Amino acid sequence: MIEVKIVALGNLKEKFLKEAQKEYEKRLSTLCKLKIIELSEVKLDANSDALIQKALLKEAELIKKAVGDSFVIQMCIEGDKISSEKFSKFISNKALTGVSSIAFVIGSSHGLHDSIKDMGKGISVSDMTFPHQLFRVMLLEQIYRAFQISAGSKYHK
Amino acid sequence: MIEVKIVALGNLKEKFLKEAQKEYEKRLSTLCKLKIIELSEVKLDANSDALIQKALLKEAELIKKAVGDSFVIQMCIEGDKISSEKFSKFISNKALTGVSSIAFVIGSSHGLHDSIKDMGKGISVSDMTFPHQLFRVMLLEQIYRAFQISAGSKYHK
Repeated sequence: MIEVKIVALGNLKEKFLKEAQKEYEKRLSTLCKLKIIELSEVKLDANSDALIQKALLKEAELIKKAVGDSFVIQMCIEGDKISSEKFSKFISNKALTGVSSIAFVIGSSHGLHDSIKDMGKGISVSDMTFPHQLFRVMLLEQIYRAFQISAGSKYHK
Repeated sequence: MIEVKIVALGNLKEKFLKEAQKEYEKRLSTLCKLKIIELSEVKLDANSDALIQKALLKEAELIKKAVGDSFVIQMCIEGDKISSEKFSKFISNKALTGVSSIAFVIGSSHGLHDSIKDMGKGISVSDMTFPHQLFRVMLLEQIYRAFQISAGSKYHK
């Protein structure tokens, strides 16, 4: 069973998002070893570019520790836009080539440091901006869908 | 205050989606006259293309009634991919040119009939497939974000 890590900055605040995550954790429990790793966002006193870069660098260190040896898929607007079918194929191809752990990285509201964007593969879900907390649920849905597509289930038609 | 209709096929089933919709209804209540119109999906006995087309046509009739004189934005994979900023501008431009009601149409799991796709403007959020119920929450988020962008708020940075 492949390990799937979600490495995310910040905690879920809204109750409906926590409930949504719980539902997808349940659905995914028989399909992969899911680990949701929440890291603390580095707080900013001001919004200057230099301070943002410094915060992103600090977050990048935490992310790299959490990711460990896993294959990294970083979710960022500059990433490739792919269909759910291609996303599913990408994940199952990784598993076929011996990857035993995949880590999906979701940045904070300021995004991800360049050193993370250089890792593994970047995927973009939308040109639109979503709150990173709602985005986590959207990603869980795509991971669940990816397993359903690989299994040839009726979930994805 | 502009009227915003969400014309959607099928009801929300998951509790977390209902809670999410409630939260966005609350947030949007001071920004627009939001009306969520849920139409019944036409049930299919089999999955042949002919039956699907027949069902989509029936659904299209219900959609057209619900839409009325509103400007239609149909959410479909063939639509334009735009950023949240452009989405916001598109909506505020419509308001500026005298449009008093916008109807966002979300199809059923089989999509939308061509006669709906010919109406107004088509917008695609993602190359990935989302369940139309979760998609409704994603759309509510983008509508809320659009109003925040127009207002120059900090919500969207």
